[in-house]
Amino acid sequence: MALGEFDLIRRYFSRATPSALLGIGDDAALVAPTPGQALVVAADTLVEGHHFFAGTAPEALGWKALAVNLSDMAAMGATPRWFTLCLTLPAAEPDWLAGFAAGLYALAERHQVELIGGDTTGGPLAFSVQILGEVAPGQALRRAGARIGDDVWLSGPTGAAALAVEARYGRLTLAPDDLAYCANRLDRPEPRVELGLALAGLAHAAIDISDGLLADAGHLAACSGVAVHLHTDLLPSLPLPPALANSAAAWRAALGGGDDYELCFTAAPQQRATIERIGEKLGLPLTRIGQIEAGQGVRLLDDAGRPQQVERLGFDHFAGK
Amino acid sequence: MALGEFDLIRRYFSRATPSALLGIGDDAALVAPTPGQALVVAADTLVEGHHFFAGTAPEALGWKALAVNLSDMAAMGATPRWFTLCLTLPAAEPDWLAGFAAGLYALAERHQVELIGGDTTGGPLAFSVQILGEVAPGQALRRAGARIGDDVWLSGPTGAAALAVEARYGRLTLAPDDLAYCANRLDRPEPRVELGLALAGLAHAAIDISDGLLADAGHLAACSGVAVHLHTDLLPSLPLPPALANSAAAWRAALGGGDDYELCFTAAPQQRATIERIGEKLGLPLTRIGQIEAGQGVRLLDDAGRPQQVERLGFDHFAGK
Repeated sequence: MALGEFDLIRRYFSRATPSALLGIGDDAALVAPTPGQALVVAADTLVEGHHFFAGTAPEALGWKALAVNLSDMAAMGATPRWFTLCLTLPAAEPDWLAGFAAGLYALAERHQVELIGGDTTGGPLAFSVQILGEVAPGQALRRAGARIGDDVWLSGPTGAAALAVEARYGRLTLAPDDLAYCANRLDRPEPRVELGLALAGLAHAAIDISDGLLADAGHLAACSGVAVHLHTDLLPSLPLPPALANSAAAWRAALGGGDDYELCFTAAPQQRATIERIGEKLGLPLTRIGQIEAGQGVRLLDDAGRPQQVERLGFDHFAGK
Repeated sequence: MALGEFDLIRRYFSRATPSALLGIGDDAALVAPTPGQALVVAADTLVEGHHFFAGTAPEALGWKALAVNLSDMAAMGATPRWFTLCLTLPAAEPDWLAGFAAGLYALAERHQVELIGGDTTGGPLAFSVQILGEVAPGQALRRAGARIGDDVWLSGPTGAAALAVEARYGRLTLAPDDLAYCANRLDRPEPRVELGLALAGLAHAAIDISDGLLADAGHLAACSGVAVHLHTDLLPSLPLPPALANSAAAWRAALGGGDDYELCFTAAPQQRATIERIGEKLGLPLTRIGQIEAGQGVRLLDDAGRPQQVERLGFDHFAGK
């Protein structure tokens, strides 16, 4: 069917935007920033065949398009407020659009973030979301704040999304339950927004694990001018059968897989009890996985404190791996 | 060459962002909104083969990716401040990237708007820009403010971009000079930012001509609950040889072509002298092309005031024209 751009927006993407001065339907939206807060701005694109497989359920795509951006807000300790969506579609299929909108708004409503504008256009399937959040200027969680002696924390096990990718490529066979767990982590990541808010002004540095634990720990190390020491025996295990959870594939995925959207953050050792209480309150398995040392880069240490070889495992879209 | 995502950003998209609290390189950027101003938010995507021809000069693409978004700021009467860029590339080619960045920053610097973040990823060539501007809340130029009796103004002739498209498709032959003029309008549109700022609080309604004059006048009419009457004899002529400027192709392009990025705005007749002075000061041929009447939709009137047939000429990405 030939569904026009304006009909498409009206039908699928015009829910109320009570916090906006002017929502969808003009040349731009108008919002009123909260006085005294800094505005936090991020944008991320997902492209079919690069960030998701052709045929992925539209609900999952709508969810994930927003989730990866909410994760950036979480990593800054920001309250997400508004977002725009640039949607590129080969065709305007009502069932697909209804599913995409359902997934998008399910997550938007959970975090009370409002779709205030954007663009729909023809082309190869892709979505760009730009998200706007707010944070007290001095409380933003930057990558650059890690201090020598800080604990390094991780908000949950990593690697499940990468295992699902391996399974979908047919390079790994997973039992149905295990695949379901991993696929859910890949398709419907839970951005750690509440955790980010609880850590604002408490943690010294934070990053979300989108490129892979080692790569993102490396970004944090580089931005902070320190070394990140990670203890392999402290890394949280995936809730999967031990043969799988301890496999080389799971190990590679946990360190280098990406698409996890857990937070890796650093804080003073004096904050351990406070952080553990935050984890209990939010139902998140916050785990100390290492510490910040003088130096640079990321070091992996085994249970005896011996260095392990760190390969370049992070995901890079253009590096031609 | 295998240029990594982080190298790519560092090399081509890391100019200084003096107005940002935190620019490119973290999970998100931080900026300080101006107290008392509303934030103006827009986003637009350009996709190869849909919004531009394969092989278009990268300088033009960088320019235009930002220009179409600046035009939305102009249409709101907003001061553009910051933008993010989501860049999807089949490959990271240094020459292409250098050209794209040169075009982008040339326009950004002209309007003092700063690139503060975004995303680069692999995939079919496309760019989404999300732009943030500021305006005094009561002075924003909305589509909905047109009043009966208002003059309707246009900031310049329309149709040249659409003629260039026709020529590139091989459906129209243009002399080299004429093609150069039209191609420049298509590839390097000049967003009317200064005009929008001058009109904020003065014009009653405004829209930028991206979908075509008739379509966009129709949006303005619908949003304002009024009719837009346009006088065909008042429409500004393209600065092209008369045989071309008065051709049926030029006429169709002027009314329905789109991609013009002129502003169409309405204002009280008492403001004519003020608006003419603004046009002189900015060097823009501001032209009264009609007036707002009771009713709905757009009416085209000939020089004797007789209604002309208005076809549905606006551009719609999904309507399957």
